[in-house]
Amino acid sequence: MSGGGEARVAIVMGSQSDWPTMRRAAEMLETLGVAHEARVVSAHRTPERMVAFAKGAAAEGFSVIIAGAGGAAHLPGMIASLTHLPVLGVPVQSKALAGQDSLLSIVQMPAGVPVGTLAIGESGAANAGLLAASILALSDDALSERLRAWRAQQTQAVAERPQD
Amino acid sequence: MSGGGEARVAIVMGSQSDWPTMRRAAEMLETLGVAHEARVVSAHRTPERMVAFAKGAAAEGFSVIIAGAGGAAHLPGMIASLTHLPVLGVPVQSKALAGQDSLLSIVQMPAGVPVGTLAIGESGAANAGLLAASILALSDDALSERLRAWRAQQTQAVAERPQD
Amino acid sequence: MSGGGEARVAIVMGSQSDWPTMRRAAEMLETLGVAHEARVVSAHRTPERMVAFAKGAAAEGFSVIIAGAGGAAHLPGMIASLTHLPVLGVPVQSKALAGQDSLLSIVQMPAGVPVGTLAIGESGAANAGLLAASILALSDDALSERLRAWRAQQTQAVAERPQD
Amino acid sequence: MSGGGEARVAIVMGSQSDWPTMRRAAEMLETLGVAHEARVVSAHRTPERMVAFAKGAAAEGFSVIIAGAGGAAHLPGMIASLTHLPVLGVPVQSKALAGQDSLLSIVQMPAGVPVGTLAIGESGAANAGLLAASILALSDDALSERLRAWRAQQTQAVAERPQD
Amino acid sequence: MSGGGEARVAIVMGSQSDWPTMRRAAEMLETLGVAHEARVVSAHRTPERMVAFAKGAAAEGFSVIIAGAGGAAHLPGMIASLTHLPVLGVPVQSKALAGQDSLLSIVQMPAGVPVGTLAIGESGAANAGLLAASILALSDDALSERLRAWRAQQTQAVAERPQD
Amino acid sequence: MSGGGEARVAIVMGSQSDWPTMRRAAEMLETLGVAHEARVVSAHRTPERMVAFAKGAAAEGFSVIIAGAGGAAHLPGMIASLTHLPVLGVPVQSKALAGQDSLLSIVQMPAGVPVGTLAIGESGAANAGLLAASILALSDDALSERLRAWRAQQTQAVAERPQD
Amino acid sequence: MSGGGEARVAIVMGSQSDWPTMRRAAEMLETLGVAHEARVVSAHRTPERMVAFAKGAAAEGFSVIIAGAGGAAHLPGMIASLTHLPVLGVPVQSKALAGQDSLLSIVQMPAGVPVGTLAIGESGAANAGLLAASILALSDDALSERLRAWRAQQTQAVAERPQD
Amino acid sequence: MSGGGEARVAIVMGSQSDWPTMRRAAEMLETLGVAHEARVVSAHRTPERMVAFAKGAAAEGFSVIIAGAGGAAHLPGMIASLTHLPVLGVPVQSKALAGQDSLLSIVQMPAGVPVGTLAIGESGAANAGLLAASILALSDDALSERLRAWRAQQTQAVAERPQD
Repeated sequence: MSGGGEARVAIVMGSQSDWPTMRRAAEMLETLGVAHEARVVSAHRTPERMVAFAKGAAAEGFSVIIAGAGGAAHLPGMIASLTHLPVLGVPVQSKALAGQDSLLSIVQMPAGVPVGTLAIGESGAANAGLLAASILALSDDALSERLRAWRAQQTQAVAERPQD
Repeated sequence: MSGGGEARVAIVMGSQSDWPTMRRAAEMLETLGVAHEARVVSAHRTPERMVAFAKGAAAEGFSVIIAGAGGAAHLPGMIASLTHLPVLGVPVQSKALAGQDSLLSIVQMPAGVPVGTLAIGESGAANAGLLAASILALSDDALSERLRAWRAQQTQAVAERPQD
Repeated sequence: MSGGGEARVAIVMGSQSDWPTMRRAAEMLETLGVAHEARVVSAHRTPERMVAFAKGAAAEGFSVIIAGAGGAAHLPGMIASLTHLPVLGVPVQSKALAGQDSLLSIVQMPAGVPVGTLAIGESGAANAGLLAASILALSDDALSERLRAWRAQQTQAVAERPQD
Repeated sequence: MSGGGEARVAIVMGSQSDWPTMRRAAEMLETLGVAHEARVVSAHRTPERMVAFAKGAAAEGFSVIIAGAGGAAHLPGMIASLTHLPVLGVPVQSKALAGQDSLLSIVQMPAGVPVGTLAIGESGAANAGLLAASILALSDDALSERLRAWRAQQTQAVAERPQD
Repeated sequence: MSGGGEARVAIVMGSQSDWPTMRRAAEMLETLGVAHEARVVSAHRTPERMVAFAKGAAAEGFSVIIAGAGGAAHLPGMIASLTHLPVLGVPVQSKALAGQDSLLSIVQMPAGVPVGTLAIGESGAANAGLLAASILALSDDALSERLRAWRAQQTQAVAERPQD
Repeated sequence: MSGGGEARVAIVMGSQSDWPTMRRAAEMLETLGVAHEARVVSAHRTPERMVAFAKGAAAEGFSVIIAGAGGAAHLPGMIASLTHLPVLGVPVQSKALAGQDSLLSIVQMPAGVPVGTLAIGESGAANAGLLAASILALSDDALSERLRAWRAQQTQAVAERPQD
Repeated sequence: MSGGGEARVAIVMGSQSDWPTMRRAAEMLETLGVAHEARVVSAHRTPERMVAFAKGAAAEGFSVIIAGAGGAAHLPGMIASLTHLPVLGVPVQSKALAGQDSLLSIVQMPAGVPVGTLAIGESGAANAGLLAASILALSDDALSERLRAWRAQQTQAVAERPQD
Repeated sequence: MSGGGEARVAIVMGSQSDWPTMRRAAEMLETLGVAHEARVVSAHRTPERMVAFAKGAAAEGFSVIIAGAGGAAHLPGMIASLTHLPVLGVPVQSKALAGQDSLLSIVQMPAGVPVGTLAIGESGAANAGLLAASILALSDDALSERLRAWRAQQTQAVAERPQD
């Protein structure tokens, strides 16, 4: 667990190989001081662990779940089918199809079971962290303050002119 | 305004022609008893109205913004760049490219400005309503209860066998 | 149940709306005299029914499972993760993306959990029935004979010249 | 021949250059103790060898055929047109189009001639081996036992947390 | 047979349902006075008829073969693998993927077995007729004259201004 | 500022990382002697700087704006919504989707707000410089002369035969 | 000729069948009071008329050329190769591929010969008219005034709320 | 000139950078003893050289034209519009879109002007050489013999089993 206090955000991924992408979500939450926890939960290789995790996530104290997967990426959607917590999905860049398969497998959910989907790859993972924080900030003024400060800093960091 | 009480969710769209899609979000929020408000805010035809709306959304009392657009769909991402509230994006199905352009224009946001993207078209709009509700339910037990009841009902409504 | 005797093939689908496509699998099995049974089992709306079905399918006496779904089509892959029976997947043609999402969500499974995927739509459903029959025919000589007769008939039915 | 006993599974491929992909199928069958045999059979360069192979495969004692090819990948479908045995297709990753051409050329078969298609590349080849084993296991209890043990081991091998 | 004299061009197609597209090739050859013949030869349902046709096409007196097919369109490439005559391929527009599968299955042939591929659908079929004529015109001055006259007429038929 | 005199062309980009692509526009304008200026203006991280820039561009003396961005590339379209000056868009090649997302996000603008879009990547950036020059040349005979000389030189530089 | 005075903008298209799309460009120019002229100039059926038109366009008094075409859409790029005037390209929606072929054939020009490309179909045609007007407005204050008035009117025409 | 005697096949390409691909066509013709000649003829940078070449190709003694180009690949289609000789097109693999743009720009020709299109990249170039040879072999028995010998050799060169 990291970020201090009881973990509010679970970061789950289908495989160890997704971690270089998904750690960007963890780093963002770290930066914003949001307690989180990362786990490997494979929809395909450990379906029952996945069911147990998803059904128990609210009781474990999680408020938001970030799920990343690649290829036929079923993890985010399956977790969303098993919890009423908000689920954010990160399409991990796949080898042959560059994440187009991951993106469509995550975003094209049927009416009734939503997954808030972010961009393919590391940008998407970082943004999942940010979006989770903005959700939690709705009822956490200190976090809201940190989030706004972080964004203001981002804005200020944009140089006026390109550097050779 | 609909759903009772001060609107918690703003549903904005780039054009009147997006309404047949986006009303699915409104109907879902109605069903779940979440106060909401729908507006036409075009990133391209009314950019300054969009800036004013996005910057003032938190002060107006909105907690979540659902934004739908088609084609070069800039509305969700631009609103996300101007507010720290969670923004959910709905790719409206476009004429020539069936929403592939809308989807990529909404989901492929750079690190720093997230849009939680739903499926192309009406399913995505309905799910944006659901996801907004699940976000608000984190600090609203009654809504959480209604959301869980709605989902249980969905599960029960699935017949055992296909009907000819 | 149809086809005579204990059902050997289960045909499952995510929703009633998949039935016009998936009945082509049932009709093919009917034609070939293979006992089968069709059920609605939604990965997203009835995830626990799906888990129960998939884990119990072998004990129920099924030998092959045909699963059809559209969009973010998780049903075939999730069933494959929960049974050691062969699973055949049918991508149902989706509205916006014409089944490209369904196809990629079904076929791009990670190493360890295979789904034998057929073509998008009705042709794929009919072929799932045929492939299931060819699998069962490996240990059923009478079925093997019927299958070969059906294919010979198909060959003979091709006219020499196109008809205006 | 490998795997012990008379080969049950034929692994055919269009060219020597497909072997680094297709050997994943052979390795999987090796692991599961399924006798198999690999051959180069080009639909385009050796069409008559292909016809002879496909028509004689059942008589040679094969029960399942795994066929891999890239680009305009005609091998799996052509073999399926010439045998009543189950045929599994593996789209080999192509240079320009990353296997999208291979996938569509294999999976989009017309009604009447099925190919059970796996994922693009090495994962698909490994899964073709697994699916062939699950088909043979329907009438081979010892193999069924080995297959279930292998899958249980896969499940146990998934660590709880990602490793830096 | 049509066009007068011994047929020079064979027009083959995988199914009766391809004829509304492929008859455009026949009509073009008719217009240019090139003897031709249309047959249904399915790579998948009548593979042996296809092999016999392709191997015997030169002896039958054909000089050019036009082959049309849709989906996993194997007919043009398989014929090309069995004859040294020039083969022209027409991707028939498919239902789900609008001919993208047909196009890639025909055009992405490996080095060694060429198929000269035309556009998806009726334009491609008409152009296959034209290209066949331009090939035959290399050693047929009268045809060359008719071809040039037809093209000149096409040029003259283009009005100067669009008509409301 | 470069190119001599008051800058006529603004080259704006969403991020420093776009500069290696966009400098090709600057170099082309340099070559043609057109005064220009490059700035970093992020639609997403500095939306208000973007609004101020776009609304003030005409008053600053710019005649043409070249805007480059990647992924969900909103910069060109948003600037076009805020100025009546001609806006040219350059899709920067993105990591996962190779610029297909950038291209669609820039070119698929709704009726009312045009962006003249160039090719993905460096060729597109160079061509944006050329197109800007051809626009300015309409009322600048000396530039028109330089542009024609540059193009004539391009034509002459094409060798007759390929070099090994 | 329409719009009053000597035509400033040429609208050319590959075929009469492009006119329902391209007339949107003419209507926009009409609205803005820009003299224009529409012609059918086929790159493929009348290549020499095309060369003559493109080389003579500046001498005829045209300042901007709008070219629309579908499929393998060569007209805009070929005209751009033969004139130093700014060329705007409109991808006409094609039958099988919905204009994806038209778009790529127009926009992916090599460095040295730019085509400013608009959206697929009628929106793109209307925007080509607008962009041409914004180019001409750089040296025509009255037109600049009309253009700004038109855009202001567009902004005002956006209703605050969607209408059922 | 190479291959002996008066050149029968012209190999043209849009740029020197296409030569590493297109030389595969030259090598194939060399192997088959077909006289040929390679030239750089850019549709975009040297449009008038292209027109002169295409209109004069028959008079120069060429019988078949192979044209290769990448991106918005207009060369094959434009040459086809200016000659009645058969034209074969080779899509050169492009940087961002891997030749998908080149393929569509070449193959999707309108009815009336055919280009026989080969695969993307080197395989396509080699096959263009082979297809040109098979066209010339229709009236050249010695070449027909060499072509058949080459193909027989290809068939024999396919090993029975893959080599580790």
